[in-house]
Amino acid sequence: MGCKNCCSICLQCLFGYETNVMLVINNKGVGALFRLIQFLIIAYVAVYVCWIQRAYQDTDSVISSVSTKVKGNILTNTSIEGVHVWDVPEYVIPPQGEKSFFVLTNVIPTPGQTQSKCPEIPSLVTKCESDSDCIEGQTEVHGNGVQTGHCVQYSDTIKTCEVQAWCPLENDTIIPKPALLGAAEHFTVLIKNNIQYPKFNFRKRNLLHHINSTYLKNCTFDRKTDPHCPIFRLGHMVTEAGEDFSVMALKGGIIGIFIDWNCDLDFPERFCIPKYSFSRLDNKNPENNVAPGYNFRFAKYYKNNKSIETRTLIKAFGIRFDVIVFGMAGKFNIVPTIVNLGAALACLSLVTAICDWVMLTCMKDHDQYAKRKFIHLNQNGDSVPLSSMETTSYGTP
Amino acid sequence: MGCKNCCSICLQCLFGYETNVMLVINNKGVGALFRLIQFLIIAYVAVYVCWIQRAYQDTDSVISSVSTKVKGNILTNTSIEGVHVWDVPEYVIPPQGEKSFFVLTNVIPTPGQTQSKCPEIPSLVTKCESDSDCIEGQTEVHGNGVQTGHCVQYSDTIKTCEVQAWCPLENDTIIPKPALLGAAEHFTVLIKNNIQYPKFNFRKRNLLHHINSTYLKNCTFDRKTDPHCPIFRLGHMVTEAGEDFSVMALKGGIIGIFIDWNCDLDFPERFCIPKYSFSRLDNKNPENNVAPGYNFRFAKYYKNNKSIETRTLIKAFGIRFDVIVFGMAGKFNIVPTIVNLGAALACLSLVTAICDWVMLTCMKDHDQYAKRKFIHLNQNGDSVPLSSMETTSYGTP
Amino acid sequence: MGCKNCCSICLQCLFGYETNVMLVINNKGVGALFRLIQFLIIAYVAVYVCWIQRAYQDTDSVISSVSTKVKGNILTNTSIEGVHVWDVPEYVIPPQGEKSFFVLTNVIPTPGQTQSKCPEIPSLVTKCESDSDCIEGQTEVHGNGVQTGHCVQYSDTIKTCEVQAWCPLENDTIIPKPALLGAAEHFTVLIKNNIQYPKFNFRKRNLLHHINSTYLKNCTFDRKTDPHCPIFRLGHMVTEAGEDFSVMALKGGIIGIFIDWNCDLDFPERFCIPKYSFSRLDNKNPENNVAPGYNFRFAKYYKNNKSIETRTLIKAFGIRFDVIVFGMAGKFNIVPTIVNLGAALACLSLVTAICDWVMLTCMKDHDQYAKRKFIHLNQNGDSVPLSSMETTSYGTP
Repeated sequence: MGCKNCCSICLQCLFGYETNVMLVINNKGVGALFRLIQFLIIAYVAVYVCWIQRAYQDTDSVISSVSTKVKGNILTNTSIEGVHVWDVPEYVIPPQGEKSFFVLTNVIPTPGQTQSKCPEIPSLVTKCESDSDCIEGQTEVHGNGVQTGHCVQYSDTIKTCEVQAWCPLENDTIIPKPALLGAAEHFTVLIKNNIQYPKFNFRKRNLLHHINSTYLKNCTFDRKTDPHCPIFRLGHMVTEAGEDFSVMALKGGIIGIFIDWNCDLDFPERFCIPKYSFSRLDNKNPENNVAPGYNFRFAKYYKNNKSIETRTLIKAFGIRFDVIVFGMAGKFNIVPTIVNLGAALACLSLVTAICDWVMLTCMKDHDQYAKRKFIHLNQNGDSVPLSSMETTSYGTP
Repeated sequence: MGCKNCCSICLQCLFGYETNVMLVINNKGVGALFRLIQFLIIAYVAVYVCWIQRAYQDTDSVISSVSTKVKGNILTNTSIEGVHVWDVPEYVIPPQGEKSFFVLTNVIPTPGQTQSKCPEIPSLVTKCESDSDCIEGQTEVHGNGVQTGHCVQYSDTIKTCEVQAWCPLENDTIIPKPALLGAAEHFTVLIKNNIQYPKFNFRKRNLLHHINSTYLKNCTFDRKTDPHCPIFRLGHMVTEAGEDFSVMALKGGIIGIFIDWNCDLDFPERFCIPKYSFSRLDNKNPENNVAPGYNFRFAKYYKNNKSIETRTLIKAFGIRFDVIVFGMAGKFNIVPTIVNLGAALACLSLVTAICDWVMLTCMKDHDQYAKRKFIHLNQNGDSVPLSSMETTSYGTP
Repeated sequence: MGCKNCCSICLQCLFGYETNVMLVINNKGVGALFRLIQFLIIAYVAVYVCWIQRAYQDTDSVISSVSTKVKGNILTNTSIEGVHVWDVPEYVIPPQGEKSFFVLTNVIPTPGQTQSKCPEIPSLVTKCESDSDCIEGQTEVHGNGVQTGHCVQYSDTIKTCEVQAWCPLENDTIIPKPALLGAAEHFTVLIKNNIQYPKFNFRKRNLLHHINSTYLKNCTFDRKTDPHCPIFRLGHMVTEAGEDFSVMALKGGIIGIFIDWNCDLDFPERFCIPKYSFSRLDNKNPENNVAPGYNFRFAKYYKNNKSIETRTLIKAFGIRFDVIVFGMAGKFNIVPTIVNLGAALACLSLVTAICDWVMLTCMKDHDQYAKRKFIHLNQNGDSVPLSSMETTSYGTP
């Protein structure tokens, strides 16, 4: 009998189904409250969690590769350089067409610089009366060279400290206005963007499938008429960013080209399309700013007839376009689904707690409910005191 | 008595342990169903959530820094340039060795360009009969300069509009075939990659600890024999990406070098090793494409004997290699563990709901079960109607 | 009666409130255990989940744009080049001021290279006795050109294979010590960083609102006195990274400038400020390393009097500064809140399970408890066996 009994207990444990004993109260108030809160929680899960936040999805961040290609030519006619046609290799820096490209819009050239000595550009700290005002070997943070210790004539009336430097020095106090290459707003740029979501093994390009080569050769991006054309007019982008190209061209700036690849991969692949937006990234507020705009200096090096190295220094103002690709893809996954479902279910248990509290405190008959709901058992379980026993002795009239 | 009573009620509230009253039903069907669903949920949590998805882990995204260094020399012998040896500073652009580097594979050079006037390259829009066909000041999108308004002889039979430009113009209609620097497939590149997961204060390099300098000086990456060698043969990478180097070298393209740093940081640090993969990123499908391949133009500037600026324009075709580092690290954290455990537990409560439903509808004895499970109590709790009372009066034979 | 009855059953289902029947046990031990575990779980949720991990927040990754501008001049006096002042366009490569910028600290120049033939730099593989040791057309991985097949005098005592290359070859065996541009540690760099969290529509710059232009023109970053100044002294950054600038300047290296934008957006925007830190990213351990330090070669191209292309090859050693922007922003969101709250609630149900187990096994009166907690019902529900019936017949004295 021993083993047989043992087995039967085990089986009873395994297959004996345990379920809660419930007290059903036909109280319309509490019942309605109960159903209302239940409904609210289920509605929250269905509408907000599932529909709006898509919390049943696993997510992945975008990985991206970008190449860019600018097109356009500009003719300028200046007193220094004469007639000059600027083409892409001259005004796009660096020329490789990476995801951050710079388009020259304004230029201060300083041709014929050689390593030699010349007077500094006049400023509060460089003006001098005699050699004793200049310190040999000193370099000013905003200066252009290393002081030789001499005080020399800069012009008929002004004396400044002499520096060893690439001379003649650049004088960038006067910025050409209007911008030399202000016509750059008519240039176009082709942006090729290839993205992938490695977790979902999903790849796509911004040259969408339904677009053919003929269309691509002639289109320009327009939010309404050509929202999928990957060719952008520079002026259009700057305007969409809320800026005036001719003003921005003077001192330069940074424009962000945002490509948003947020995708719901539970839908077919063709619904996953990039959204373009543009905004200015640098600070144009002059209040808390230093070195406003965007500029840098570079040089072209030559050797003159006597084999001495000379260079043309170019202070380049222009617009840097940063292509910034971002996005999250979501796809149904059982883990976040279970997590959100489970959490919502757990919250349903809160409903019972709230309704119990209402029932046991606010209701007229709360004593009756409590008597039925709670079965009291004292510490010395075998002898139940009469008073508490009575409250639980329902079923005996 | 008041306060003493009060205290005892408080204590009773605090230390009175409340537990559900359970109905145990020895029905093998429902019991088996109950245990089965319980088992399935627990198995799901153990196997899928914990083991496969590692949902008990907190995650962090990789932060990475890359430097690259290409090695190799090529000798070319062309009618224009004669014998020429190409070394790294000439064919790697930009030279700094950043995470995106370009290797020249094909070249259309146009030496001796100066700012002057010359006839346009013939095309549908540039051919002309007389000056009236050319508009002074106009720039074609695909043209090379700004029209002067004159129609001039391009060759004996063809007349085209004259342009102000860097002349002579580049003629890129014929691309050298085979690619001038097709031997670039034998070049090698050393990729140094340093990553960190800031949340876990974890740092690592792709030069693994167990690799010594001697090995590094002679190895090349091979998925089977040398999977941890950070030196890659360009041709090998292109082959692994499923492309033919000699074809790709003609017009260029973009190859992604993916370094996958997905790591389970609950394991020792030595198991966290990078996985390399390669794929082509640009679109080689000619159907919906524009400007296929990868090329850009740059120029070397000279001054000739008369101090006039001349330049050698180079249309550079080649392969851009983008090193793309990605990955997520996971490490045990109590928050996601609790969340997933809690969610699974909450789902277990669903099991009871399902089994209750089965028990109360499908079972032969569902009336009996319902009578035992539910204790009905009417709104006017003090007077329980006899009929419903009877169903709950178990315990009285 | 049919329909009326039907409706009343439906209403009863809808508004009949179901609540668990509870057994209250006045056992201080189990009660205390129950309350203790409950308290621990609630404390964990309140302190750890909410306060420390901020698990009630939705998160977003930072999107960033960086521009940099280096300032400073250095005078060098070498036997080859004489007195030379280096300014920004010469020592910052590339000059555009992107988020990764290289500052030249040491230089091996090789002026006057032309395409010609010359003996290789002596090494184990390039030394030769006769022409038969040299293979025409071969290129050594670490060589500088393509072998012509001839063995020629390198110096009075050494013969090496002749190569077609840019001659004379660079000899980089001796690195200038101390570094030519070691004074670069006094240079400063202005870093402008613009970030956004697209999910929360939050944008900010590292030029904080309360900082004015006057302050910006004179400050330098210091962790204690000027923690928000975006102008950094190169030497200071290298020191904070735990390196010696003069040592690092010799062979170069990579320094990471980390900008941490971790923000709690439930607080006002002014509390979201960047934290700067610096560390060395490349491997300085010589054991498992190849090509230590950081260097690359670039060339300046000239045409000499006879219009032959010559170049000055420059092996550039220096420090690459990588500005690495990272961070996560968190903001209150109902979904993660519900998920974490629900999960914690679900875990509370574990408490009951644990306490039940303690009560039903460890307690003296566990038989009594079991009798009261479980109501047994056999498969043939209508005839409950007497034995099990008796255990549930509490309430009848």
